[in-house]
Amino acid sequence: MGSTWGNNLKISIFGESHGEGIGAVLDGLPPGVPIDLTRIQQELNRRSAKGNPLATPRKEEDQIEILSGVFNGKTTGAPLTGLIRNENTRSGDYSKTKDLMRPGHADFSGNIRFQGFQDYRGGGHFSARLTAPLVFAGAVAKEVLRVIKPALIISSRIVSIGGISDVSLPQWQDYDDLSNNFKNPAFPLYTPDLEISMKDEIIAAMNDHDSVGGIIEGFVIGLDPGIGNPFFESIESRLASILFSIPGVKGITFGAGFGLTNKRGSQVNDPMIINNGRVETLTNNNGGINGGISNGMPVVFQVAMKPTPSIGKQQQTINLAAMENASLEIVGRHDPCIVVRAFPVVEAATALCLVDFLI
Amino acid sequence: MGSTWGNNLKISIFGESHGEGIGAVLDGLPPGVPIDLTRIQQELNRRSAKGNPLATPRKEEDQIEILSGVFNGKTTGAPLTGLIRNENTRSGDYSKTKDLMRPGHADFSGNIRFQGFQDYRGGGHFSARLTAPLVFAGAVAKEVLRVIKPALIISSRIVSIGGISDVSLPQWQDYDDLSNNFKNPAFPLYTPDLEISMKDEIIAAMNDHDSVGGIIEGFVIGLDPGIGNPFFESIESRLASILFSIPGVKGITFGAGFGLTNKRGSQVNDPMIINNGRVETLTNNNGGINGGISNGMPVVFQVAMKPTPSIGKQQQTINLAAMENASLEIVGRHDPCIVVRAFPVVEAATALCLVDFLI
Amino acid sequence: MGSTWGNNLKISIFGESHGEGIGAVLDGLPPGVPIDLTRIQQELNRRSAKGNPLATPRKEEDQIEILSGVFNGKTTGAPLTGLIRNENTRSGDYSKTKDLMRPGHADFSGNIRFQGFQDYRGGGHFSARLTAPLVFAGAVAKEVLRVIKPALIISSRIVSIGGISDVSLPQWQDYDDLSNNFKNPAFPLYTPDLEISMKDEIIAAMNDHDSVGGIIEGFVIGLDPGIGNPFFESIESRLASILFSIPGVKGITFGAGFGLTNKRGSQVNDPMIINNGRVETLTNNNGGINGGISNGMPVVFQVAMKPTPSIGKQQQTINLAAMENASLEIVGRHDPCIVVRAFPVVEAATALCLVDFLI
Amino acid sequence: MGSTWGNNLKISIFGESHGEGIGAVLDGLPPGVPIDLTRIQQELNRRSAKGNPLATPRKEEDQIEILSGVFNGKTTGAPLTGLIRNENTRSGDYSKTKDLMRPGHADFSGNIRFQGFQDYRGGGHFSARLTAPLVFAGAVAKEVLRVIKPALIISSRIVSIGGISDVSLPQWQDYDDLSNNFKNPAFPLYTPDLEISMKDEIIAAMNDHDSVGGIIEGFVIGLDPGIGNPFFESIESRLASILFSIPGVKGITFGAGFGLTNKRGSQVNDPMIINNGRVETLTNNNGGINGGISNGMPVVFQVAMKPTPSIGKQQQTINLAAMENASLEIVGRHDPCIVVRAFPVVEAATALCLVDFLI
Repeated sequence: MGSTWGNNLKISIFGESHGEGIGAVLDGLPPGVPIDLTRIQQELNRRSAKGNPLATPRKEEDQIEILSGVFNGKTTGAPLTGLIRNENTRSGDYSKTKDLMRPGHADFSGNIRFQGFQDYRGGGHFSARLTAPLVFAGAVAKEVLRVIKPALIISSRIVSIGGISDVSLPQWQDYDDLSNNFKNPAFPLYTPDLEISMKDEIIAAMNDHDSVGGIIEGFVIGLDPGIGNPFFESIESRLASILFSIPGVKGITFGAGFGLTNKRGSQVNDPMIINNGRVETLTNNNGGINGGISNGMPVVFQVAMKPTPSIGKQQQTINLAAMENASLEIVGRHDPCIVVRAFPVVEAATALCLVDFLI
Repeated sequence: MGSTWGNNLKISIFGESHGEGIGAVLDGLPPGVPIDLTRIQQELNRRSAKGNPLATPRKEEDQIEILSGVFNGKTTGAPLTGLIRNENTRSGDYSKTKDLMRPGHADFSGNIRFQGFQDYRGGGHFSARLTAPLVFAGAVAKEVLRVIKPALIISSRIVSIGGISDVSLPQWQDYDDLSNNFKNPAFPLYTPDLEISMKDEIIAAMNDHDSVGGIIEGFVIGLDPGIGNPFFESIESRLASILFSIPGVKGITFGAGFGLTNKRGSQVNDPMIINNGRVETLTNNNGGINGGISNGMPVVFQVAMKPTPSIGKQQQTINLAAMENASLEIVGRHDPCIVVRAFPVVEAATALCLVDFLI
Repeated sequence: MGSTWGNNLKISIFGESHGEGIGAVLDGLPPGVPIDLTRIQQELNRRSAKGNPLATPRKEEDQIEILSGVFNGKTTGAPLTGLIRNENTRSGDYSKTKDLMRPGHADFSGNIRFQGFQDYRGGGHFSARLTAPLVFAGAVAKEVLRVIKPALIISSRIVSIGGISDVSLPQWQDYDDLSNNFKNPAFPLYTPDLEISMKDEIIAAMNDHDSVGGIIEGFVIGLDPGIGNPFFESIESRLASILFSIPGVKGITFGAGFGLTNKRGSQVNDPMIINNGRVETLTNNNGGINGGISNGMPVVFQVAMKPTPSIGKQQQTINLAAMENASLEIVGRHDPCIVVRAFPVVEAATALCLVDFLI
Repeated sequence: MGSTWGNNLKISIFGESHGEGIGAVLDGLPPGVPIDLTRIQQELNRRSAKGNPLATPRKEEDQIEILSGVFNGKTTGAPLTGLIRNENTRSGDYSKTKDLMRPGHADFSGNIRFQGFQDYRGGGHFSARLTAPLVFAGAVAKEVLRVIKPALIISSRIVSIGGISDVSLPQWQDYDDLSNNFKNPAFPLYTPDLEISMKDEIIAAMNDHDSVGGIIEGFVIGLDPGIGNPFFESIESRLASILFSIPGVKGITFGAGFGLTNKRGSQVNDPMIINNGRVETLTNNNGGINGGISNGMPVVFQVAMKPTPSIGKQQQTINLAAMENASLEIVGRHDPCIVVRAFPVVEAATALCLVDFLI
């Protein structure tokens, strides 16, 4: 329970960090959608640590195998299943720390929830490695959107790392800028070109055997007005329900988010105009959503990611088996900043959510 | 679609602001739970504008009638239905502005979504008035929790209004303080005793024919560890999916939220200890949740509420029927600050989410 | 749990036989569908005992009140709620037999399931009276089908009573006959014109303080091919899941049903032909469904209804409170043959199922 | 859409007859359940054609590989995934008949539903081969039941083949006989020991290049009273929804089924007694279910299976590409009587349904 999502498109993710493999089943895809495996693998590579000097030394190929649902290069409409075999596992790293609960991790809460039977190696099913099936599923969703909404743009960007913001970024209110930046390719594959100060922050954390958090902004440009629902099936509700499933996410805001709370209505009610026969708003404080439903402006949201809890520094914790206090230095291979790998996951979750609304 | 929520407890809310009535059906309640109608009415009164000088002049009695599911004062286990008849409606207020889309409202997005057939009077089904059935449903959920988890505390507080914070409040990290404050009654009915500067901010907005936003903090004290799931059915995912359904909510964070993004892992990984044979954390930056599952510490979250979009000030908007630009001065009866009425809704949503997890 | 159904259209029924009222909420209706209350009331009247000499002496008006979801005579797209107040209740009839479990009824199983807290008066939520909200919901679904599939025919007929078949009926294989019979009105309101021998069977049962069962056939003519899904969301799976919720239904077959089990494939594989540029089958042993998906032929199914368990004859049973054997003579007002009132319920369930597939 | 089932246990089946592989994901299993792979493989072997002279010459090993969800021989509580690679495929058999719609098959309806993109080889996702993942999932469910309800018996038997009944079988009313037959092993693996006349019927069909149907009876002994729900989540509704997903099933009855329709209430209302302090019924015409809820008696149901539509005999059909009439002789390898392989599928579906109710 908990690894299945969706109303019209049912997504089921499975696997553990150090088990046989990880994967996803997508049930409810429209038939006849061309599946470009190169593009899908490219999305997985964006998430992968391979070739990323700011990421964990555990480098996985994350090679996807399609087990079902594709015939003659197109979706059949039957469940589409992708499998990634785990390869570069060093389970020995984890057995020693089996009873030492890593602070900030799901070790303790997961142990209680699953009565000690969970696969503790590398976080098991809780591992951020499970975002690979999410990215795979999202990449398939992007293939669907390419067909049913070719003008739609889903993208993301890293807004800040460890409190250091990218000053060169246009502000989210300037959706014209955003639109201009993303006019051409249907799904521009954003590659973070972090400012030197942001990179330095990550490297400093790495050298300190520590980690840093950051903020990712997701956006959808070109979504027709009228998508979504009031209340429980609002865009915000649905998008939050899938975004909060990404390990490390602790906050989600839409539009101006918490900035709205210290403003007057007259300052942030987005004034409306007719522009070339199209209804638009002059500002986008509501992030493209009113009453849970898209208003035609860019859907913009920010995702707060905490620092990776796995750090090399000595930490105060407990030995759950012995029920005694303990100290812990994690010696496995970990990411100093999950933010640099999580932005494709944010996009994937967004793509899945949109397909679920649109099919 | 969109007005039904829940896995184990199915909640269905219905009604429009100026229709016959509003209400909720709860399917899946455990049988034998005593239903104290006085307590339920009290919850509705907390949300009501009646007797609240900071709220809209539209004063509704919000008298609940139980139509089904209660027999001899206890739940039967069959669907429990509550109905509130609408009384104090002045539909004439709205007909004039039918084609003028209120900025920041669901008027335009809802019109597109429902092809112009939505009940436009007072926002129809999009109205914040629909939070009354949510509060009713949440009050029933609290009755359930009283029986199945008598030590559980669900409460809330207003953290800031228009950017002015309540300086007297203990910080959320100090969950001991929170616990001490809420030791006695199972469900302390928080009554906002706003600082004079916060009240002044609301009154100033009211006098300006304007509105202000604010932040509400919700918390759950005494939740056992091990509740929740990884990924899509995490506490964060489920709670966000129901909290984002409250009109005006544009952001949700857990624990230290966005504050985590500019910190190091070593600063915010909550150190663990054994305290009197119980596993605890020294800080609560994760808001009581790791890997989507409760860790036994207080579940703490903050909800960003935007200023009520209905304001008296002149605003730039469009006439959708004529497809031309227009200006609008809303003359109906509205709340200058929905925050002072929304905190019981936050609690209600939390109670519903917990019952859904716990039954 | 158990009183909510649907993927795209969520139906929630509520109420007890002797409570305040019974009703239904439909969430997910398309907006703009004209709602003809006369037609909806007419469907309720078909199910009603009023004016039916073969039905229970408890005559309810079953007057429907629409509480939400209709504005200016059309659906808004928000939840549509209908309420029927209970009127003609004689709860005194039931209190005496509270602990005497009626054989064939849900008294015992329901008592265990709901731990004795269920409303025992008149069967409470288990009462066949709850089929009134189903008929109401189905009548709304028929209004939707009128708009989105105007050529579609949903109807039913009583095939047998107490083992006595209506010999005048065309056989289900002769779908041409069926089609011809139902060519004109979109939803012909079948009125059973039972053969004298069938009526006599009911009257005989009534005079014996007994009851009889029977078979209802439902059919859908004009359903496009390609509706439905393989496996769990097949037409058979979905239709069965809603039809088996009708009290008293103990069997459902599609097409030739059990008749297929003693045949060869060569006898019952429906041969296919091109007829006027349309794909048809020469026979319809599969009842219009292959692999869970409509093939364009009439969808035909039969529903086995057991005799109403409430009978006046003395029966052997138990007193659950005393845990001792007992005998029981039920003296309330009951139907001698629920079949004559259940056919509109079968149609309603079918209409709901189709709307769920088609919207 | 359509290959995912379950409320508390989510089952997702995937694969095509001639694709890479077939499998199932089970999400929501309780943790700590020992998984005996030998027993699971044994269930798959019962369904397999291997060693069964009455089955198709296509003999698959159906070797299951567990990809996730099992650690140290026990369920972890995370999704459990099983994969069966397809081996003995001869896709060439099918390409020739791609446009010739097999009568009685999903070829035509599936083609319309999936717009011609479905994998047509061997029926693709519609193939009865997909019952292997169902049996796998059911075998895992049986492992769960072994732990949580060790006294429960789920079994099945072949009641008739081509209209020839097994006269030696005890009647379903005699649940004492049933109980005695199945007292000892928790899950007796029924092996059909068909009477000679039944075998002869299958062989005759095979020799005629034809096929025959039959009836399978499923039963559950030892189910506590009080399991299930009224209406849409009744045992009948849930069990039917999963049983009707088995290819070839066209009818399902509970208890005396259609036999109830020609009886009086006084004949079939099961009289109740106290027997050794336990509530029982003297007969079991209701098949252990009243009002959708178990009453403690054996749950008994019958499943009508049509003759396998794939037959060698010449049949009248259409060429869908050419839209012209055609004749067809199917030359692939097929089962003359799917009944002899379907009984473990009936048990598997039953086990899954019960686990979904009981966890």
